[in-house]
Order: sequence, then C-alpha cells, then structure tokens
Amino acid sequence: MKVTLSALDTHESSFTPLVVIELAQDVKEETKEWLKNRIISRKKDGGAQLLFRPLLNKYEKETLENQNLYLVGASRIRLLLGAEAVGLVKECSDNTMRAFMYGTRHNFKGFDDDNDDFLTMAERQFIIKHELESLRARDEKMIPGYPQAKLYPGKSLLRRLLTSGIVIQVFPLHDNEALKKLEDTWYTRFTLKYQPIDSIRGYFGETIALYFGFLEYFTFALVPVAVLGLPYYLFVWENYDKYVVFASFNLIWSTVILEVWKRGCASMTYRWGTLVMKRQFEEPRPGYHGVLGINAVTGREEPLYPSYKRQLRIYLVSLPFVCLCLYFSLFVMMIYFDMETWALDLHENSGSEWTSILLYVPSIIYAIVIEVMNRLYRCAAEFLTSWENHRLESAYQNHLILKVLVFNFLNCFASLFYIAFVLRDMKLLRQGTFDDYLELFLQFGYVSLFSCVYPLAAAFAVLNNLTEVNSDALKMCRVFKRPFSEPSASIGVWQLAFETMSVISVVTNCALIGMSPQVNALFPESKADLILIVVAVEHALLALKFILAFAIPDKPRHIQMKLARLEFESLEALKQQQMKHVAENLKEDWREGGKEEAP
Amino acid sequence: MKVTLSALDTHESSFTPLVVIELAQDVKEETKEWLKNRIISRKKDGGAQLLFRPLLNKYEKETLENQNLYLVGASRIRLLLGAEAVGLVKECSDNTMRAFMYGTRHNFKGFDDDNDDFLTMAERQFIIKHELESLRARDEKMIPGYPQAKLYPGKSLLRRLLTSGIVIQVFPLHDNEALKKLEDTWYTRFTLKYQPIDSIRGYFGETIALYFGFLEYFTFALVPVAVLGLPYYLFVWENYDKYVVFASFNLIWSTVILEVWKRGCASMTYRWGTLVMKRQFEEPRPGYHGVLGINAVTGREEPLYPSYKRQLRIYLVSLPFVCLCLYFSLFVMMIYFDMETWALDLHENSGSEWTSILLYVPSIIYAIVIEVMNRLYRCAAEFLTSWENHRLESAYQNHLILKVLVFNFLNCFASLFYIAFVLRDMKLLRQGTFDDYLELFLQFGYVSLFSCVYPLAAAFAVLNNLTEVNSDALKMCRVFKRPFSEPSASIGVWQLAFETMSVISVVTNCALIGMSPQVNALFPESKADLILIVVAVEHALLALKFILAFAIPDKPRHIQMKLARLEFESLEALKQQQMKHVAENLKEDWREGGKEEAP
Repeated sequence: MKVTLSALDTHESSFTPLVVIELAQDVKEETKEWLKNRIISRKKDGGAQLLFRPLLNKYEKETLENQNLYLVGASRIRLLLGAEAVGLVKECSDNTMRAFMYGTRHNFKGFDDDNDDFLTMAERQFIIKHELESLRARDEKMIPGYPQAKLYPGKSLLRRLLTSGIVIQVFPLHDNEALKKLEDTWYTRFTLKYQPIDSIRGYFGETIALYFGFLEYFTFALVPVAVLGLPYYLFVWENYDKYVVFASFNLIWSTVILEVWKRGCASMTYRWGTLVMKRQFEEPRPGYHGVLGINAVTGREEPLYPSYKRQLRIYLVSLPFVCLCLYFSLFVMMIYFDMETWALDLHENSGSEWTSILLYVPSIIYAIVIEVMNRLYRCAAEFLTSWENHRLESAYQNHLILKVLVFNFLNCFASLFYIAFVLRDMKLLRQGTFDDYLELFLQFGYVSLFSCVYPLAAAFAVLNNLTEVNSDALKMCRVFKRPFSEPSASIGVWQLAFETMSVISVVTNCALIGMSPQVNALFPESKADLILIVVAVEHALLALKFILAFAIPDKPRHIQMKLARLEFESLEALKQQQMKHVAENLKEDWREGGKEEAP
Repeated sequence: MKVTLSALDTHESSFTPLVVIELAQDVKEETKEWLKNRIISRKKDGGAQLLFRPLLNKYEKETLENQNLYLVGASRIRLLLGAEAVGLVKECSDNTMRAFMYGTRHNFKGFDDDNDDFLTMAERQFIIKHELESLRARDEKMIPGYPQAKLYPGKSLLRRLLTSGIVIQVFPLHDNEALKKLEDTWYTRFTLKYQPIDSIRGYFGETIALYFGFLEYFTFALVPVAVLGLPYYLFVWENYDKYVVFASFNLIWSTVILEVWKRGCASMTYRWGTLVMKRQFEEPRPGYHGVLGINAVTGREEPLYPSYKRQLRIYLVSLPFVCLCLYFSLFVMMIYFDMETWALDLHENSGSEWTSILLYVPSIIYAIVIEVMNRLYRCAAEFLTSWENHRLESAYQNHLILKVLVFNFLNCFASLFYIAFVLRDMKLLRQGTFDDYLELFLQFGYVSLFSCVYPLAAAFAVLNNLTEVNSDALKMCRVFKRPFSEPSASIGVWQLAFETMSVISVVTNCALIGMSPQVNALFPESKADLILIVVAVEHALLALKFILAFAIPDKPRHIQMKLARLEFESLEALKQQQMKHVAENLKEDWREGGKEEAP
C-alpha cells in the first residue's frame, strides 16, 4: 500500500504557496541550488519532496528590497502523506477520532478527492514546517559554500542553516481571503458573540485557539466575582460575615472554574484530534541534540540524550539559578522599600518642591530595574531551558514557562504581599502591565488573592478582557507575523500555574480576613485564639479544595469512554498483528520444510 | 486460528483439581445434574468446558460429614485459552510484556508444550473462577428444581446459585507439596531473609504478594525512624532544636517512602504483568447488575448501569451516611470523656474501692461500644458499596476501603487528637489494636502523627511487624481458607490513604512542636508570634512535600519507556489493521465489480 509520488509533482510551476523561506542577502548561488535540490528531491533520495520557487521572477526582482524570499508548497497527495507522518488525528465516518492515513483516507469525514478543505491551512503549514525540519544531513560534511557550517549525518539542515545565518527566517503565509473571513466573524463587529474558536483553530492552530478559548472562558468566569464585588465596593461592606462570604465564594469559584475548564478543554481538543494525537511519539524538537541511536519506544533513528543528564542540569544548575534570581529580586524589593522610606523621611523633614519630586524617584528606579531584570532573566531562562535539551517542544515550553512564571509572580506580587502582610497598609494595597497567559495569570492572581481587599479587581479584569479579546485578535491577524500552528491538547503548565495560584489564594484570603480590624474586634482578648481559628478554617478550606479537585473528573465521561475505546481497539489490533506474524512464520516453516523434503 | 477443544477434554476421569464447589446438603439431583452439564458442556453450547467430579466416590461418601463437595479442573489447553480470555500478561522471548494468546504461545518465555509450569497455580485458579463466574443463563427462566431462584438471559449462574443458597461456597484448593515448599522459604526459618515475594505471588496471587511486599518494605522503612527515636527516648531529649530535627525528618521520610514504594510497586507489577493487564476491559464483577446492552468500549454484551445513577447513590446516600456515622462516633467519644471526668470526680470525692473499680468502667464501655459500632458500620458499608453497583472489583474494593478507613481513622485517632490538642495532656497521650493494611495504616498514623511525642512508636512498630510477617504468613498458609488470586497492579486506595495520612502528619507534628513547653518558652511574650511562625513553617513544609511528590516520577524511567513502547506498538497495529480492512474492501469491490461485468 505504499504510495509513491511521481517526479512531476515537485516541478509544478504554479502552486499554492504555504510557507516562506527568507535567505540572507549574500547567500552563494551554490548554496541556493543545493537547498532547492534538497527541498524538491524525492523522499527516497533524502529530499522533502516539496514544491519550491522564488517569490518573484527575474524581471521583478530588482524592485524589492529583499531578493531572497522563496515560497514552499506541496502537492495535494504530498500534504496528505505528510498529515499521516505527523500523526494528525481526524474524525472518521463512524464518529471516532483516528490517526489519519493516506490509505484509509476515504474513511474520514469530509474527505473528498476533489476538495482541498480536508486539511486546515494551519495543518498544511504545520506539515510543511515539519517536513522542512526533518530534512537531515546525509553524507554532507558541511553546508555547500560554508565550510564553517559543519554537518554530520542526521543533523537537521534547517536548524544549521538558521544557526549559521544562511536562512534568516521561515514563516507561514497569510491567506488574505481566509483572513478577511476570519476577521469578519471574530473582532470586526461590536455585538457580543462567542468567538469563532473553530475558525481560529483552522487558521492559527490549536495553541492560539486554546489561548483565545481560555481568555473568553476566563472572562465569563470572572463575571460572577465582578458582580459580587460591586456591592462590596459601593456600600463599603466591611463587616466580618460579608468578607467571609466573599472569600468562601472566591475559593469555591477558583477551584470550580479551573476544573470545568479542564473538562471543556478536553472536549474541545478531542474534537480537534489533538487530545488523541500522540505527540510524544513524534520526532524530537529541532534544537534537541545527542548521539544518534535507536529510540527505544518508536524504534526510529534519532539523537538520544540520557534523561539523568537532563535531570542533573535542571536540579544542579537551573533550579539554583532560579532560586538565586528570586532571592536577588526580593533583595532589590527591600532596597526599594528602604529608599522609599528614606525619601519620605527626607520630604517630611525638609519639605521642598525638590524633595516632593524625589518621592517618585524610588518607584521610577524600581520599575526600570524590574524591567531590566525581567529581560535579562528571560534571556537566561531561554538559554538554560534550551541547554537542558528537552526532547519535546511541549516539555521545553513547560520548563521555560515555569521559570519565567515564578520570577514574574514574585516580582508582581512580592511587593503586594509585603505591603499587605508586613507593612499591613491596606490603603497602599488598594492603589494598584502585563503577555498572553502571563497577563491572565497575574489577573487571576489579583482577583483571587486580593479581591477581598479590592472588590473591583474582577470588574476591571472583565472590562479589560473584553477589549483584550479584540486587541489580541487584531494583533494576531494584522500586527504579528503569522505563527506556525502548534497542535496542543491543553494549556499545559498554565493549568498547573493557575491551580497553584488558587491554592495560594486560599491562604491569602484567610490571612487578610484574619487581619481585618472587624475580625480582630471579635477577639479583643486573645489574638492567639483568633489566629488558631483562622488557621483551622484555612486548613478545612484547603482540604475541601483538594477533595473537590479530586472528585471532579478531569475529562467528561463520554470523552473518557472514547479514549478507553481507542485503547481497547489498539490493544486488540496488536494481538491480531502478533497472531498474523505467528501464522506467517508457521506458513514459512511449512514451506521451508516442504523444500527440504522435496529433493 | 480458532482453537477448538475435543469433547473428550471434559470427560477426563483423573485431573488436577483446582477449585472446590460446595453445594448445600439438600440440593436436588436434578439441579446437580444441570449444574454439572453446564460446567462440562462446550463453550459453544454455553458451557464452561471445565472438568468436574465429586470429591469422593459412592462407597466413601457416607464417611464424610458433607457429601456435596465437587472438584473443578480444566485441561491444559482449556487453561491456556482461559488465560487468553482473562487477559493475563506474560513475558515474551524479546523481554516485552504482552497479553498471552494461545496462538502465539510459543513466543512466551518459559512456555513448553510438555510443561505445566507456565501458568502459576494462582493464575490457574483465577481462570477457573473467572470461567465459572462467566457461566450465564441462556433460555433458563429459573434454576432447575428451584422455581424461586429466577434467571434471565445473561444472569451469572454462580451468583444466583450463591444468593439462593444452593452453592454454599467456591474456593481454591491448596497444593500441599507447593505449600510446603513455599513455607520453607517463607516463615519456617529464623534467619532474617527477604520474603520470597515471587513465590508468594505464584501461590496466592498479586494482591496477597503486594500486601506482604508492602509489609516488608514498610518495616524496613520504619527502621531509620526507630533508630532516630531511640536517643530521644533514652536521653529524654526534649529541647526545641532536636524536636524540629525529628519532625522534619519525619516529614521527608513519610513523603519519600511512599513515592519510592510507588516506583518499586510499578517495577514489581510490571514484571508480574499486572501493570500492563487492562482490567478495565474485563467483564464486570459478579455482583454488577443492569440492563443488558453493548459496552461502548469493548463492544461486548454485558449489563450496563448509568454512571450518573452511581454518582447519585454515592453523593446523596453513601456520603451523608458516612458523615452521619462520623458525627455519631465523635458524639460517643465526647460522652466517654464526660463519663471519665465524672468517674474521676466521684473517685476523688469519695475514694472507696468501689469507685476505683468504677474508674475503669467508662473505658470498658467505650471499647465495647466502639467494637459494636465498627461491626455495624462495616456491614452497612459493605451493603452500601454493593448497592452503589460498581462495574469493577477494584472500584468496589476502593470505595469499601475508603468508607471503612475514614471511620476507623476517626475512631482510632479522634481520642488521641482530643487528648493532644484539647486536653493538652501529653502524659495521657503517651500511654498507647489494630486487619492487614488497616493495621499498617494505623501504625503509620501513630508513627508519623505522634512519634515526636512518643519516639519509641517506630521501634515497637518494627518489632511488631517482624513477628507480623511470620504470623500473617502462617495465617495465610495454615489458618485461613485459601483465597482466590486477584491480579492487581498496586495497593489501590491504600496508597491514597497513606499519602493523606502523611499530609495530616505534617500538620500534627508542627502543632505538637508549637505546643511543647520548650518552644513556648522561646516566645514568652507573644503567643500570637509563636503561632504565626509555626503556621508559616507548616505551610512551607506542606509546599515542599507537594513539590517533592510532584518531582519524583511515579514509575521508574525504564518502566515508563516500556509502557510507552507498548502504547506506540498498539497504535501502529491499529493503523495497520485499518489499512488491511481498506485493502480487503477494495479487493472485495474489485471482485464484485468483476462479477457484475462477467455475465
């Protein structure tokens, strides 16, 4: 059943371009010719068997600034074979989700030999990117024309071309017609409608669609907190009972919305096929390096890197480094508070105009230092995570996010914690910018940690997010370069981050309530009794929270059933396959036996 | 490749008996004949195709008390087909663990057509039990001779025979020779050796072997705590620093030993095949009832029961019932404390001999009430769990254990907590009975919760367990009826119970340290400061504990790799199977097409 492509496929002169490769201005002709040959030559000759042509013909060339843009596309059959290679999962006519195979293509819903709509544009571009990335060196020792760009068998060509600056960038093309259609249903309207998540997924891929899905879900989830917060703000409700109601609501709310999102996310990614897609069996991410060997799971040849070495790098280098940075960040914060106290003292003692300007200086210096530290830290985190050499893109992303997150969390909230719990200055706390999930994460932090003190936090978050949806959509469609689709089954480490935050929020809310003057007034004699009661309530709430998270299944039951069905079918198929092998061996033995006896 | 058994197989007059069926004294001949026929008749005629004969021949009959014991066995080929049916997993020649199939039997390690050792005795008995349990009613409306014992198509015959008292019990036979061999290596020796866990598993099955494995592991794990506890007891170290050292050690110890056990358990059950065995795809447990339908996962006909009904029963009936019992139990405890105070007062006021005897009365009454409550509660828990109608035996067991556990935990520790934290009487706490895991669980509780106060707890637990291993082994081999083997991949809900206990222990240890007079002496002025510091340390320790549990993988890496390999192979096999189907359909179409054109 192997499908072979005719040589003609790679020489089509007009094709739908999907991906752009930008070469450096001074790239040698020899190198260009070699790269083109590698991209268009057949799979069995070590090529990618894609379609390739310069963006402009010879006559138009001189009019453009950059002359080295090349378009990459693929024939229909090539894309379908690529979809099989990357393990895309699609819905079959019997409503099950199965890994797409070219041989069984007619079993899949929406497949039509005359129709190109079966694969979304994001999927087609992901396939091209995957094929370009898996172009590997064979007998070349270097990139032709660049003796310093060394190659060894199995090295990803694209990776070497990018690191030696021969290829400047590879990016997916926009499709203006489809983009216009997407924009029309997405953000160029002012009526309140749900976002077209499936269309976003079709155009930008699962990761982006999940972000917008989460943004929308989170905004809706904030509404009850915002509504509940309004009377607290308007009527300045500050008595104990009402605080406890708000804090308890906050606790159950933060636990339930995260569990409900997990279930909704599983339903959505099941429908998209990414929940079933086994990305851990894919080839390693381009940056992954190691000694060539056989992957024990898939049996494919790929670079291998021992896991204990990665663990050593994480625990002996990255972890201490992150801890050191956190310590340093706290240290800077303390200096800031000292400076502020000093400036305030100075102003109070000799209150001139100059000293009143001086009052702003510590904040300005602190903001600048934080921003510089953030940037330096992010570079260091990227370097370290890359150096940890993760096999999967998702593992790389998770480790990177975790590092950045912890640092940002500390920088954003440490000063608030300090104000709330050390300075105990609630007025200062009530005065009060942030990319993507990080922004939502910090927002979630403000709402869940401090909304008792500042009940309008959720309302402002809702207003912010309603505009955020549109501005982020505009950025995706019009401002940013189109990103490659990255199939994903969940929001990854962000789920963990939000869950951790909701645990921290229980602690914080309890502490804030315990510190409020109203509550303190209830225990005028013994502060110790008050603290004990607050701690007991906090432990009970934490226990309730863990039981709640444990009792709500992470996947809806119908998804669980479908996943179990797939597992059962796979295991049964494996049994059948083994039976077939045995039957074939027996047949073989009979034949061999027959031959020996024959003469 | 279907293997058919000759009719002769079921009429062997001498066979190795494996299982005994005891019928009631007055069972009608008609019923006996029918049951025998159903057991020995062929699979395709709805029988179990097993071997069956009375324990004694006619002449010997009168000498025995019970005349209705029947032996069940099976031919070699029948057992191997049964092993395939129950999904036993065995090691192949290429060191992978695969579901056993009769067709591929020669691929498995240790398989020999002339040797019976391939299946352990526990496995052979498990297969017989499974075959007897899956004997289901066909067109019978009732059990012949017993019109009141109604049957409907699909009803398990054995289940109905047991509930209507026709079959009194079904139990596996001992093999005296094998038992003697096992005993020799197990407990009839006084040298300290590891237990022969693999032999125990061969004779009694995985569940029992895991219990003894855990008992041994836990005893070894207690040694460091016991050793560390000795100087605390001997030198009456009661200062703050040393307490903190002991409590911190306790915390890390309890977290690490549970994580290490999970990993060791996964390695062991992988080797035994139960980690890979997919018990969720098995037929439901005998007690499970519902409307006959098609299982959406396996596609087999079996009783179906909607999951939401089970959830309703759990959350609306069982949960409130358990909570009520817990409340009642606490209520009884408070009465006990009141009675004790009253008796003490009476004795102090009028100290006669009679009142000194009266001092023991509350304890005696409380002990009796607790024991009665325990027994009543256990019956209720068994009834409720059975009524919850769980599909899998493991789910039934887990829900039952959870109910019993919570109640026992409260009964055992509530009074200790009350003494420690309300009465704050450390001397009373230091005076200080426990089946199987429950005993170990309560032991773990005593050691991890209170070993700061009573440092000898671990030492006594070690001494107790060293004798416990031998006495439990003796009980299993000589005292108890041999149990059927129950393949299991882990210690189930007990793992969760131990983990929960270790979280509780962090809280308790911190509280005990905070209450010690030595620590209180450090903060003579502000009790509030002391409590805040203790709570802060406790939160940090809990966070450390969760990070530790998260960072240590539950399965060793080589087991993870092997499981991933199996999943990959299964999914690949499923793809191949689909391809084959398509190819066959195409062939079929061609043939059909040919036929149409031919005439």
